[in-house]
Amino acid sequence: MSSLAVDYARQNYPRFLDELKALLRIPSVSTLPEHKGDCRHAAEVLGAELTRIGMEHARLIETAGHPLVYADWLHAAGKPTVLVYGHYDVQPPDPLDEWLSPPFEPTERDGNLYGRGADDDKGQVYSHVKALESLLGANGKLPLNVRVLLEGEEEVGGEGISRYVASKPAELKADFALVSDTELFAPDLPTLCVGLRGMIYTELEVRGAKTDLHSGMYGGAAPNPFIAVAQILAKLKDEDGHVLIPGFYDDIIPPSPEELAAWKSLPFDEEQYRIAEVGSRTLVGEAGYSVLERTWARPTVDVHGIPGGFTGAGAKTVIPAKAVAKVSMRLVPGMTTTKAFALYKSYVEKIAPAGVDVEVRLISAGDPCLIPVDNPYVRAATLALHEVWGKDTVFIRSGGSIPIVGDFDRHLGIPSVMMGFGLPDDNIHAPNEKYRLKNFALGIESIIRFLEEAGG
Amino acid sequence: MSSLAVDYARQNYPRFLDELKALLRIPSVSTLPEHKGDCRHAAEVLGAELTRIGMEHARLIETAGHPLVYADWLHAAGKPTVLVYGHYDVQPPDPLDEWLSPPFEPTERDGNLYGRGADDDKGQVYSHVKALESLLGANGKLPLNVRVLLEGEEEVGGEGISRYVASKPAELKADFALVSDTELFAPDLPTLCVGLRGMIYTELEVRGAKTDLHSGMYGGAAPNPFIAVAQILAKLKDEDGHVLIPGFYDDIIPPSPEELAAWKSLPFDEEQYRIAEVGSRTLVGEAGYSVLERTWARPTVDVHGIPGGFTGAGAKTVIPAKAVAKVSMRLVPGMTTTKAFALYKSYVEKIAPAGVDVEVRLISAGDPCLIPVDNPYVRAATLALHEVWGKDTVFIRSGGSIPIVGDFDRHLGIPSVMMGFGLPDDNIHAPNEKYRLKNFALGIESIIRFLEEAGG
Repeated sequence: MSSLAVDYARQNYPRFLDELKALLRIPSVSTLPEHKGDCRHAAEVLGAELTRIGMEHARLIETAGHPLVYADWLHAAGKPTVLVYGHYDVQPPDPLDEWLSPPFEPTERDGNLYGRGADDDKGQVYSHVKALESLLGANGKLPLNVRVLLEGEEEVGGEGISRYVASKPAELKADFALVSDTELFAPDLPTLCVGLRGMIYTELEVRGAKTDLHSGMYGGAAPNPFIAVAQILAKLKDEDGHVLIPGFYDDIIPPSPEELAAWKSLPFDEEQYRIAEVGSRTLVGEAGYSVLERTWARPTVDVHGIPGGFTGAGAKTVIPAKAVAKVSMRLVPGMTTTKAFALYKSYVEKIAPAGVDVEVRLISAGDPCLIPVDNPYVRAATLALHEVWGKDTVFIRSGGSIPIVGDFDRHLGIPSVMMGFGLPDDNIHAPNEKYRLKNFALGIESIIRFLEEAGG
Repeated sequence: MSSLAVDYARQNYPRFLDELKALLRIPSVSTLPEHKGDCRHAAEVLGAELTRIGMEHARLIETAGHPLVYADWLHAAGKPTVLVYGHYDVQPPDPLDEWLSPPFEPTERDGNLYGRGADDDKGQVYSHVKALESLLGANGKLPLNVRVLLEGEEEVGGEGISRYVASKPAELKADFALVSDTELFAPDLPTLCVGLRGMIYTELEVRGAKTDLHSGMYGGAAPNPFIAVAQILAKLKDEDGHVLIPGFYDDIIPPSPEELAAWKSLPFDEEQYRIAEVGSRTLVGEAGYSVLERTWARPTVDVHGIPGGFTGAGAKTVIPAKAVAKVSMRLVPGMTTTKAFALYKSYVEKIAPAGVDVEVRLISAGDPCLIPVDNPYVRAATLALHEVWGKDTVFIRSGGSIPIVGDFDRHLGIPSVMMGFGLPDDNIHAPNEKYRLKNFALGIESIIRFLEEAGG
């Protein structure tokens, strides 16, 4: 691999790591109002660093929440333009007492860097910045046009960036996006994520009596919204995990035989997954589908909580006036959020038991997406990854949703290359989040080589 | 009606009412630690008043919580002994802003006395004290032997008195109990409550994965405890309100044809009840049973809340590791708490869906009870009530549970006469609690005449 930029990265790696540690020390927890200043500080640090390495027009874009960071370098005439996405905000560190080293004091241990945001997503964002520095530092220019767009609200729903992207600003005109917020399927296995499930998140409210009633006096005559909500939820999915909403599965585009065959060859053991990751008595879900199919390519329904009623210790004999179930559905390619919600809503209204009123509310929605793998950017990525990691890239999907990928597709009309270097055991959103030091180094090299290949 | 004691009560009624107001000004809210002193103060005031009117051996009996008040007068040789029960603690007054006059500043309005505890149970307790004063003041003696036992924890579970009664102290030896914590079925309709439903209150815990999981990553493979708990709850009761636990109904002793016929003649309109009291779209429950049968003489299952999981605003995509449903069952005569719990527990364990562990915990239990109406005390009560109210007494049941009645039966072997003078719209446990002034006056006269009749 002959790349001056890769040489530059290797020579400057110790400094890159020190700089990442400084970024990790900023507690930019987006959900906590007391860290509002820290979020802005992280944005300012990144903006200043982008200017320092030679990117242009670096600025903060204000939103109703935390600011976006924008910068560009657009001097590669005739070359494609990449939109580089990442986020500088992090999850809260709780529970604090489970951290072996302080969440905002990055600590090296066993070949890993521990700290909140080390993987998700500062470690990955900083890989991009340092790849750009390496290219500019080694060559005085970039191999293609680059726009950088970082957000500070990914962990709280990403409303600011979503609205900004929906406004289709000229500033975001690009040929493809590079999103580094995913992971390798297994250590040292170069991975591209090419599919995401969509989601509708809803509230299902069931109302019975006009006010809370005493269950002694009224039990047996007054409707109980918690029993009604249970009756409804029990009819959403049968005990084999099959969703019972009529028409729910109608539009699904199943994975191709080639994709299914590729998944079968991935290093994945269902029993090991059950024991190490889930820890339940058995796994559940639709018969006839593997775990990877069930979590990547099949829609499902989950319930997250049922607020209302009496939740304290001990006994309170109340028939609550209402119950609200937080219900979400994961959707797969072919399905749309609009149709799924309409089918769900009319089904719930139809099966609601006597005596109660139901209301179904949509809280948030994101369409599923499937990235075509036969484009030059994916080919450039696999070439670069093979060079850096010495192995063929595996194409996986994710059961989760990255709404920005759908936004880029829908509003900007561009595909995303989801090239991430996290690992499944990096404890994102949990105590002792880590990022493998090797992945930080090889991630930078992978991005350098990818941008060089994508620039042709 | 020629009773010196009734004359005494009528002459002293204005003072009785002033004294009740003073008692109502003591905010003896048993559940709030900051009112611990107020609870003791109320107990001391009642103990001192019992001594002042001529009762003997008045003293506070300490418990782990608020003290009991005891007093007796045992000089009616050859006469039966009555154990008079009531409670001096009250519910919290929240929500305060819905009160038209301050909860602890008793206020007369529209023929009612408004204030927390006016009905439940200070107004009723004080009727007993003033009936005893009237009898002692007019005659220098009581027509039968009297023991008074008041508690200060009725609104928080009544553990202290329950333990004390279970210890079967010689101090409580009596022939019957007089419990004034119930209500008239309708205004001016003399009423005795002769049956109570029992209850088991349980927690049903369902555990899936070892920790909370991301519903995107794991949805479709990891068990969802909220869906599992919904599936279980949906199988406890069908949509017609019929409980599906095998054997649940086996031991029920149905009301006699006479009792059922009497209920049919009560002034009760189901549609009016639905609109005014429940306010739901329809009433629910087992087909073929009237509302009074369903709430008085049929067992049922209610769910009070399902703590756990995500209950905040907005969306959090979590598959919670566990869910806990607060489930209670009302039991009717013939059923026992022990058997009902055992049937429920083994049924839940049998129907639990794959992938989850279930645990069923008993939180509290009280057996149902049915008071025989063919005893001299009930006859004395109906005679007294007819004299005071000019009407025949109706015998009703209550769907609720008054555990002390079961304790008196089980531990002391005595029946209870449940003669109360509240009204269905007295707003007990709610803002603007009231007690009808007429009922305070006639309640005292009813108790006087009842004790005179019971003394033969």
